[in-house]
Amino acid sequence: MTAEQRIEQLENHVASLMRQIGVLEDIHAIRRLQHLYGYFIDKCLYDETVDLFADDGEVRFMGGIFKGKTGVRRLYVGRFRKNFTNDINGPVFGFLLDHPQIQDVIDVAPDRKTAKARARSMMQAGRHESATAQGQLPRQWWEGGVYENEYVREGGIWKIKVLDYNPVWHATFEKGWAHTPAEFVPFFSKTYPEDPIGPDVLATEPHRVLWPKTSVVPFHCPHPVTGKPIVPQDAG
Amino acid sequence: MTAEQRIEQLENHVASLMRQIGVLEDIHAIRRLQHLYGYFIDKCLYDETVDLFADDGEVRFMGGIFKGKTGVRRLYVGRFRKNFTNDINGPVFGFLLDHPQIQDVIDVAPDRKTAKARARSMMQAGRHESATAQGQLPRQWWEGGVYENEYVREGGIWKIKVLDYNPVWHATFEKGWAHTPAEFVPFFSKTYPEDPIGPDVLATEPHRVLWPKTSVVPFHCPHPVTGKPIVPQDAG
Amino acid sequence: MTAEQRIEQLENHVASLMRQIGVLEDIHAIRRLQHLYGYFIDKCLYDETVDLFADDGEVRFMGGIFKGKTGVRRLYVGRFRKNFTNDINGPVFGFLLDHPQIQDVIDVAPDRKTAKARARSMMQAGRHESATAQGQLPRQWWEGGVYENEYVREGGIWKIKVLDYNPVWHATFEKGWAHTPAEFVPFFSKTYPEDPIGPDVLATEPHRVLWPKTSVVPFHCPHPVTGKPIVPQDAG
Repeated sequence: MTAEQRIEQLENHVASLMRQIGVLEDIHAIRRLQHLYGYFIDKCLYDETVDLFADDGEVRFMGGIFKGKTGVRRLYVGRFRKNFTNDINGPVFGFLLDHPQIQDVIDVAPDRKTAKARARSMMQAGRHESATAQGQLPRQWWEGGVYENEYVREGGIWKIKVLDYNPVWHATFEKGWAHTPAEFVPFFSKTYPEDPIGPDVLATEPHRVLWPKTSVVPFHCPHPVTGKPIVPQDAG
Repeated sequence: MTAEQRIEQLENHVASLMRQIGVLEDIHAIRRLQHLYGYFIDKCLYDETVDLFADDGEVRFMGGIFKGKTGVRRLYVGRFRKNFTNDINGPVFGFLLDHPQIQDVIDVAPDRKTAKARARSMMQAGRHESATAQGQLPRQWWEGGVYENEYVREGGIWKIKVLDYNPVWHATFEKGWAHTPAEFVPFFSKTYPEDPIGPDVLATEPHRVLWPKTSVVPFHCPHPVTGKPIVPQDAG
Repeated sequence: MTAEQRIEQLENHVASLMRQIGVLEDIHAIRRLQHLYGYFIDKCLYDETVDLFADDGEVRFMGGIFKGKTGVRRLYVGRFRKNFTNDINGPVFGFLLDHPQIQDVIDVAPDRKTAKARARSMMQAGRHESATAQGQLPRQWWEGGVYENEYVREGGIWKIKVLDYNPVWHATFEKGWAHTPAEFVPFFSKTYPEDPIGPDVLATEPHRVLWPKTSVVPFHCPHPVTGKPIVPQDAG
């Protein structure tokens, strides 16, 4: 090759490397973002949680969709902060809501403007016996759930576009998942403003069921070896 | 340096960068693969699980080794799917087998054709009281375990070569790991075809013990600081 | 551009890529290091644990600070190994201390000589009923906690500079976090040498509290979107 050709080949390789390393940096940034989400929720840092979302972000939770910054704020600040911490933005005595964040499958779009990730949590929640119970929640429970989230990069900063959390099981600490009561955490049935701290719309996809019912939260990605869609057999 | 020398140095750097970024992409692909394995097992997607393995892949489980696609399929489809979901390829009402995948230590071989990883799971398993019990399993239990897996890259796609799962403890939900009954999940004692859904051979390494016995699953890697082998003192 | 200019631009890009990929390799090395720490502690590999630390490393634990290799060794070998395994460097029958390592937020300094990471564990600990109880520990408990660690790169090898572990909650297996007794694991009140296996100094930051008290372990990083410090409201 001539010097000219070698330079051109180097330019092509370097352009490819810049894109590849950009994707790996994106993956790290998205993992960091999702992990910080968990640390914020653990500690009732609800303002900080809302700030993780894009302006047109949304949360899908318990059969409801909270849309835009207004909807997201209604859920975290209007609902959770009021119910859980008496509107304090931070942890309070005897209230536990740990949200460990694990098992991410992060996929960045070729244009590096959006990304999707499957992830999960296995939570510990409840109130200590010495803290004033508020009545509306079981005293202590375990909870497993799966996220299928979307992220967006705006001004070089990754933000949450869609936080789609699907609880897979709830279990009281005392009795376990073999004895979970029916409708342990009921789905939303009313929307805002009829419910002043309710969702903007109701979600109705068939996979949104509660244990002991089971379903597969749709995968954002194909099978990593066969490339086929990942679809369960219908159990009838 | 002459332009020629600078081009040559750039070519060397770029070759090195391509290899380094290739390794980081491999790590991401292997993490993704192992995490998807967990999501598949959670949801009884046994066909999809088998598809994650190389043709000469194998599973080491409960003192048995299931060899090749035939053996791997015998375990997941012939054994688990039949026992757990009445041969449905997907989740069924009231059956839980969550396999969170965490704490990977992934090491890619210099030639990028194979890799090894230590990882772990902390599982939630059992059946809801409203689902028909099948008798052969405890109703609900926790389980911690360690993987020492091998992976292979074929046609640019990472696959599982060896899935070596070692349960470290089992605990009933009711009583915990302080009261685990002896032989909570018995090791295989017969091979295929004597056991038509049994392993091809029995594994006999001394670290394959069940709680309350303890052992160290051998590490695939040396100590990250000293470079020495990681070997426990013999407790006698 | 002239060939000269193109070469110069390539050199700049390649220099940047080398730094970027170095940071990603650092992140992988630090994740690996912290994950191996967890596997070592699981299995009472206390010598191997001490070897993960820099010579001037330290551990912050239960209100005490153990300084330098001497202090770190006093904690892991002088205290834990003596109390937990009768000074065996490896696992013993019926003793469980699993330390799953999850949810890292790893940030490498621009000069790549130091790094910080937030991470967490959700532990399973205790002794089996068939193992001789030593009296000083509850038989079986769950524990959640947060790390804010520091790492240092020496001779190309990442080591632990500060392991700062903050338990967020303890729960007996039988009763759970709603009924954790007060002072479940008391803080250190005496230093070495008055306590021959005690810390070098006592830590007194206000966030070092035990459940059902709550606090926010200070974040090493700003908010990933707003860039502001992450500080909870004072619950009063």
